[in-house]
Amino acid sequence: MADKPSTPLLDTVNSPVDLRAMPREDLRQLSDELRAEMIDAVSVTGGHLGAGLGVVELTVALHAVFDTPHDRIIWDVGHQAYPHKILTGRRDRIRTLRQKDGLSGFTRRAESEYDPFGAGHSSTSISAGLGMAVASALMDKPRNVIAVIGDGAMSAGMAYEAMNNAGAMDARLIVVLNDNDMSIAPPTGAMSAYLARLVSSPVYRGAREAAKSVVSKLPQFLHEPARRTEEFARSFFTGGTLFEELGFYYVGPIDGHNLDHLLPILDNVRDAAEGPILVHVVTKKGKGYGPAEDSDDKYHGVSKFNVITGAQTKTPSNAPSYTSVFADTLIQEAHDDPRIVAVTAAMPSGTGLDKFAEIHPSRIFDVGIAEQHAVTFAAGMASEGMRPFCAIYSTFLQRAYDQVIHDVAIQHLPVRFAIDRAGYVGADGPTHAGNYDAAYLGAIPGIVQMAAADEAELRHMVTTAAAYDDGPIAFRYPRGDGMGVDLPARGQILPIGKGRIVRQGATIAILSYGTRLGEVLAAADKLAALGLTPTIADARFMKPLDEELIAQLASTHDVLLTAEEGSIGGFGSHVATFLASNGLLDGKLRFRPLMIPDRFVEHASQADMYADAGLDRAGIVATALSTLGYDEAAMVAALGKAR
Amino acid sequence: MADKPSTPLLDTVNSPVDLRAMPREDLRQLSDELRAEMIDAVSVTGGHLGAGLGVVELTVALHAVFDTPHDRIIWDVGHQAYPHKILTGRRDRIRTLRQKDGLSGFTRRAESEYDPFGAGHSSTSISAGLGMAVASALMDKPRNVIAVIGDGAMSAGMAYEAMNNAGAMDARLIVVLNDNDMSIAPPTGAMSAYLARLVSSPVYRGAREAAKSVVSKLPQFLHEPARRTEEFARSFFTGGTLFEELGFYYVGPIDGHNLDHLLPILDNVRDAAEGPILVHVVTKKGKGYGPAEDSDDKYHGVSKFNVITGAQTKTPSNAPSYTSVFADTLIQEAHDDPRIVAVTAAMPSGTGLDKFAEIHPSRIFDVGIAEQHAVTFAAGMASEGMRPFCAIYSTFLQRAYDQVIHDVAIQHLPVRFAIDRAGYVGADGPTHAGNYDAAYLGAIPGIVQMAAADEAELRHMVTTAAAYDDGPIAFRYPRGDGMGVDLPARGQILPIGKGRIVRQGATIAILSYGTRLGEVLAAADKLAALGLTPTIADARFMKPLDEELIAQLASTHDVLLTAEEGSIGGFGSHVATFLASNGLLDGKLRFRPLMIPDRFVEHASQADMYADAGLDRAGIVATALSTLGYDEAAMVAALGKAR
Repeated sequence: MADKPSTPLLDTVNSPVDLRAMPREDLRQLSDELRAEMIDAVSVTGGHLGAGLGVVELTVALHAVFDTPHDRIIWDVGHQAYPHKILTGRRDRIRTLRQKDGLSGFTRRAESEYDPFGAGHSSTSISAGLGMAVASALMDKPRNVIAVIGDGAMSAGMAYEAMNNAGAMDARLIVVLNDNDMSIAPPTGAMSAYLARLVSSPVYRGAREAAKSVVSKLPQFLHEPARRTEEFARSFFTGGTLFEELGFYYVGPIDGHNLDHLLPILDNVRDAAEGPILVHVVTKKGKGYGPAEDSDDKYHGVSKFNVITGAQTKTPSNAPSYTSVFADTLIQEAHDDPRIVAVTAAMPSGTGLDKFAEIHPSRIFDVGIAEQHAVTFAAGMASEGMRPFCAIYSTFLQRAYDQVIHDVAIQHLPVRFAIDRAGYVGADGPTHAGNYDAAYLGAIPGIVQMAAADEAELRHMVTTAAAYDDGPIAFRYPRGDGMGVDLPARGQILPIGKGRIVRQGATIAILSYGTRLGEVLAAADKLAALGLTPTIADARFMKPLDEELIAQLASTHDVLLTAEEGSIGGFGSHVATFLASNGLLDGKLRFRPLMIPDRFVEHASQADMYADAGLDRAGIVATALSTLGYDEAAMVAALGKAR
Repeated sequence: MADKPSTPLLDTVNSPVDLRAMPREDLRQLSDELRAEMIDAVSVTGGHLGAGLGVVELTVALHAVFDTPHDRIIWDVGHQAYPHKILTGRRDRIRTLRQKDGLSGFTRRAESEYDPFGAGHSSTSISAGLGMAVASALMDKPRNVIAVIGDGAMSAGMAYEAMNNAGAMDARLIVVLNDNDMSIAPPTGAMSAYLARLVSSPVYRGAREAAKSVVSKLPQFLHEPARRTEEFARSFFTGGTLFEELGFYYVGPIDGHNLDHLLPILDNVRDAAEGPILVHVVTKKGKGYGPAEDSDDKYHGVSKFNVITGAQTKTPSNAPSYTSVFADTLIQEAHDDPRIVAVTAAMPSGTGLDKFAEIHPSRIFDVGIAEQHAVTFAAGMASEGMRPFCAIYSTFLQRAYDQVIHDVAIQHLPVRFAIDRAGYVGADGPTHAGNYDAAYLGAIPGIVQMAAADEAELRHMVTTAAAYDDGPIAFRYPRGDGMGVDLPARGQILPIGKGRIVRQGATIAILSYGTRLGEVLAAADKLAALGLTPTIADARFMKPLDEELIAQLASTHDVLLTAEEGSIGGFGSHVATFLASNGLLDGKLRFRPLMIPDRFVEHASQADMYADAGLDRAGIVATALSTLGYDEAAMVAALGKAR
């Protein structure tokens, strides 16, 4: 492990007040120290690296110019906020990032008064900022509100909705567009091309050279803030028509790593009279750390790594990730069925579709951070006979809920939803929890819903979805690696709406939906050691429910449990509703649905989170025994004596 | 009733093929006849009038120029498609619009091959059209795809997402922007101001005059389609930079009621080589019908009316609408609490907030068709101490699902959701059904959820929401008029998570959530006539559930029913989950949750829809008796004999 970097200036900064008291000529060195500190911290914790490195100078400049926390800085997708956390009183905990009980990997209101708005999902900052700006005006508490948003996040519709509204309202809002020409994946979309044109224009290139002389003229305008801003901005103006047409005053593009440009411009923007202002800042993701700058993804998200070499420590795994099994299987199916196409919303590598793109480059569509469009675009293709697979994380599919109902389900179109990161996601915490899809999709008529119990089951489900033509179908699978089961060369087509008995037993039945099956089987082993032989079933389908299987389990056992990686309203609630509606609970059956508890759970390991939820083997055993009316401790003690 | 209009030309059009065979000089008269026919039809059925009147000429021109149904026309928000329906083989059924078993009020794939995509919610057409265009290219089946979208619909983020994607993909897609400067409400947003600037520019005004001479020059370019388009479009080009920056070739603005302009331009657009094209058409909502043109809302949605006078037939009601009770109560609360503000997404009159705007004009925010932004904008205000009420229909809140979770609930911000049009909505059919909110919000931790049993309860719930500071709270209420109960002058603050016993009885308990309470009480009366006295309770809250009340009902009755205006996964499923998880179904209790069935239901009256669902008094009685093991027919017969 490398020595901690030397950070004499940073060591004097306990809050932005200290930073603002520094001579501005020291801020360059402070930025360098901040960058070194951040690299060192993330090398220990893993996390998001490239985004934070790109905004080191911007972070320093914003805190130098604005009166935080009275002025509000909203970091869109809070994973770029690590430097901000270091500067705002959280440096002592920065090496706990994303660890259980440690700092969140995103901004979080509960964590600091310097985090006025939490952001895990992208493209929310302008809406939130406009709300704050309006509140400031209504409550007569003047303050600056600054939303810092990346160019990738600008492809999302909600960012446009907010720009459109802000432009019309003439609100006092500052949007800093951090144009690093790359969000997670290289950006897509016309907006991105537009920004590239702005940056590459001769005016911008000339302006970079001219900037210093313009800055030197500033003092003479000190008592004419409006005119000063006008003058200054004009010298940087290279177009920005699109934003101007939307009602924003456009300033830029500005070199986001040059404090001599950033500081005076932000001073002017702060002092500008009114109306929404867009400051276009150009930065480099991964800036200042060679291995990140040289990497394709700019070290967007990294595991622990060696600071000197940049080598990341990957935990070895005996099983392929669910993501890769999905991608490999889809590539196979697409080879056989030319109607299959794939859609991703700016997550080609996260969804594994980057592999698909290598094999079938004309059949993958990365639509940008635009889940609403992704789903309806897929529906349009399906309406013409194509067979699109939309691969979207559970948490991001929330963005397209209406489109799933209105454009896919009501029209009964054969769109296939590959729902990655279902259930708890670990270090990304509650903003990214994939806990709700079973419930929110479950309410929609006519969607087939599956959950994979292991990687082989996932392969079958991809194949099943590929073969299913009668309307929409969805399958969910978790973050992380598979169970290590044998993976068949090709998937099988599963009978729709049919589960399977995994072990036949008696007295108690446990019906699993998804990858809890591993813990359910382990629980069964523990119960067997206590003399019980539960029946274990894998539901495979939540819609349609395997009513025959459930009725049979209900009628031949005293106790029925369900286990799933989802919230109330999902699988267990559907089973409860089925059982009740059909009188299957009128008799002596004791039914207990085990599900993710109805509260937000902070980041921790996935295993810890499921243990807390009572969804690990110990929790399942405990519920089984207590439902049977057995005292677990006494049984274990008796068993010990018997031995 | 006026005589049917004389329509000699229209009478010869059985499909667009007939229209295309006509001399183009006849299309003006055909348009006039089409307009007269549409006015007459809607005078009989009620429905959406203004939007269709605005696109009569555009509809005729599109079918004249394009080879429908091989070429695809997608009408954004299908309620503008009545003229299209008349021309595409559905004239004989046009007077069944929105009636049970009649034509849908929107486009519908199942209804006609001329409806390639169903649209009830706005702003979906560009995404769907891009999907179709891409499919056309991939499948090597060349066709034109035309998305017709209003300027109001362009404020939605998903339209921008689609434009951004189409511009970058260089797909062969034609977007017709129907700029009538009014969607349902007068439009808001910077985009709207931008379009107004285009239309009001001297170049446009000059171009209108110049158009005829340009058109007359067309034939000489017939064999040079690309150059011809270029020439022609250029003469109309008055800016459109915003769209050009997004990668579209911009043509317009064009007078959308002048066929001499529309037809040749659409000819050129059809023959243009490639890439996405935006045709900016200016129309007048309600065009050609005096009473509509003179009305503020341009007869957006009307009941049956007299064609001569324009007078609408309103069914008299003894009770105020839920919408108006919400609005009146919010006005009262806002008078007492200056922190209260209201947010609507382009539905000021539908939500009743137009009344609020009259009283508190500085405290209402109409953000346009932009539900995602609406919710996060509200969250931003709430984070600064304001107390926003977001009034959004149940079906449209689906558009903001992620924002409710990510920006409001996770941050525990006091945003209040007024969910209008909850449950079945009648004539608007499945695209607008408000059936899912209880389920999709129910999955989210930490949101208080209420449903009003009648208009007095709604008043209490608005007051309760206004007083509730500990996080988000939502209340749902249906379309239509209240029950006619006494309305207190001011609402009371209800205890959070507490239901109420409405009638104490025995043996059977019925727990109602929402306005089914009226039918539940009527069912109780019918059961009383059979000698049974059920206990009736109003849950008021779905989250938190009144566990004490439910446990008490469960332990003191043989049968427990729930009744609600929502889908599986909602109230009944939550009650089932609670009962099962707590062992309350282990004994002899028979529990039956009554809910909206798990299928899409076509438009009909709300009463018919609930009767079909078994949620009217007869259905509730039938379930109660069958669950008790009683034979209803035998009981009625026995009762008759006893009398």
